[in-house]
Amino acid sequence: MAESLPRVTLVLGGARSGKSAHAEALVESRPGPCLYLATAEAGDGEMAERIAAHRARRGTRWRTLEEPLDLAGALSEGVGSDGAVLVDCLTLWLSNLLAAGRDPAEETRHLLKALPGVEVPVVFVSNEVGLGIVPMNALARRFRDEAGRLNQAVAAAADRVVFVAAGLPLVLKPSAAHR
Amino acid sequence: MAESLPRVTLVLGGARSGKSAHAEALVESRPGPCLYLATAEAGDGEMAERIAAHRARRGTRWRTLEEPLDLAGALSEGVGSDGAVLVDCLTLWLSNLLAAGRDPAEETRHLLKALPGVEVPVVFVSNEVGLGIVPMNALARRFRDEAGRLNQAVAAAADRVVFVAAGLPLVLKPSAAHR
Amino acid sequence: MAESLPRVTLVLGGARSGKSAHAEALVESRPGPCLYLATAEAGDGEMAERIAAHRARRGTRWRTLEEPLDLAGALSEGVGSDGAVLVDCLTLWLSNLLAAGRDPAEETRHLLKALPGVEVPVVFVSNEVGLGIVPMNALARRFRDEAGRLNQAVAAAADRVVFVAAGLPLVLKPSAAHR
Repeated sequence: MAESLPRVTLVLGGARSGKSAHAEALVESRPGPCLYLATAEAGDGEMAERIAAHRARRGTRWRTLEEPLDLAGALSEGVGSDGAVLVDCLTLWLSNLLAAGRDPAEETRHLLKALPGVEVPVVFVSNEVGLGIVPMNALARRFRDEAGRLNQAVAAAADRVVFVAAGLPLVLKPSAAHR
Repeated sequence: MAESLPRVTLVLGGARSGKSAHAEALVESRPGPCLYLATAEAGDGEMAERIAAHRARRGTRWRTLEEPLDLAGALSEGVGSDGAVLVDCLTLWLSNLLAAGRDPAEETRHLLKALPGVEVPVVFVSNEVGLGIVPMNALARRFRDEAGRLNQAVAAAADRVVFVAAGLPLVLKPSAAHR
Repeated sequence: MAESLPRVTLVLGGARSGKSAHAEALVESRPGPCLYLATAEAGDGEMAERIAAHRARRGTRWRTLEEPLDLAGALSEGVGSDGAVLVDCLTLWLSNLLAAGRDPAEETRHLLKALPGVEVPVVFVSNEVGLGIVPMNALARRFRDEAGRLNQAVAAAADRVVFVAAGLPLVLKPSAAHR
């Protein structure tokens, strides 16, 4: 945490791996305001509960912005020139894109094109979902494939990629300063 | 294996990853008796088969204790002052807790509180189950969440955490002596 | 990539993790012809699509050999004395073996016995499938167990094992020259 935050970080991990808490700590390691860019909407009960738990854990330094689809726009217009941003999470964003009939490959290109214009460090959180048995239905297989492609694309654009398991970070791609 | 075994080790891995064999080798690296603290009971056929295979692999230095629920009690009372203990595995323990209507968070606190009183090194085996696609039924989602929380809590209390894939260990948290 | 390719490499990863692209780059790092030993057959539409995408990505240096079952035979007879071989992938091979009623343990022994006779470096690609929630049906559980055993056996025989996540390689077993 003592090290400086690069422009783009990807924090990858499984369900309840501690990836969001790790990403939050990274963003809080920067001086200035912390923006929580949530791709979730408090639609159903289970999700509302999770969002409330996240909110309770984060302190008063945080401002929240909900954006289920247009991450490129939110990053271009909703972010100041101070502090850092947490995007939580890309997997849910993908799920929202597919539900809305958008093309994930095109939306990913938009997102990556918007990154150089963001004035503060961005930390993306994403789920690794491809390490279980092959899902039985074609839709779940497609989601798994798209999630893998999205993670690869963001990892390629990121300065630093960390995998979190049981709350412990494992560096997959060190930022240039620490190579 | 040449290195000394710390007080608490967590060996995390997938199904058939070689995590139990790795954990057994850690426990056997200590002089003295080896205690196999099994959270499984030889209930159904599939499980009985797995237990028999485990038993066949382990040598005569091993004593077995079956405890599906009260791990804190078994560690406090059933363990001597010599050798080491293997707890295999936490994921099945969680499954037993949920089936018995117990609160996993409270039981985890009991377990962690009992650890400082254990006189010999303890090696926990646990499954990582959160890296596949989101399960379709709510019960499986809850199990996945609880398993992730349990792994995080034990990893935080452990001196050393190892992830095993294809029989190969990857250190997630090095013990202080090797940092 | 600048480092030399050992006799046997295992590239392990999840769905759409970039493992095949990584393995292809390893094989292409060798001078001489590249053999793509495919365990898939272009049976149904989804698979034909995937094979076509693979083919398009690979260049003209590549020759393709389809062998769904007899990998030991293909490696013994179909490989020259120049270049390197990519076996993509072991998980599908296992699936083919089970569908054909073959014994995976015996077939794995055949495969490993054939390896010392292969004159060029071999790179195996395999899926890690054991890190999700326990599958509900017994067949999927059996597949998961067999896949884990196969990965352990090939990893033990390999000189180098790499885990790929989000396109990024993580060395699980370094080849002797880089230890």
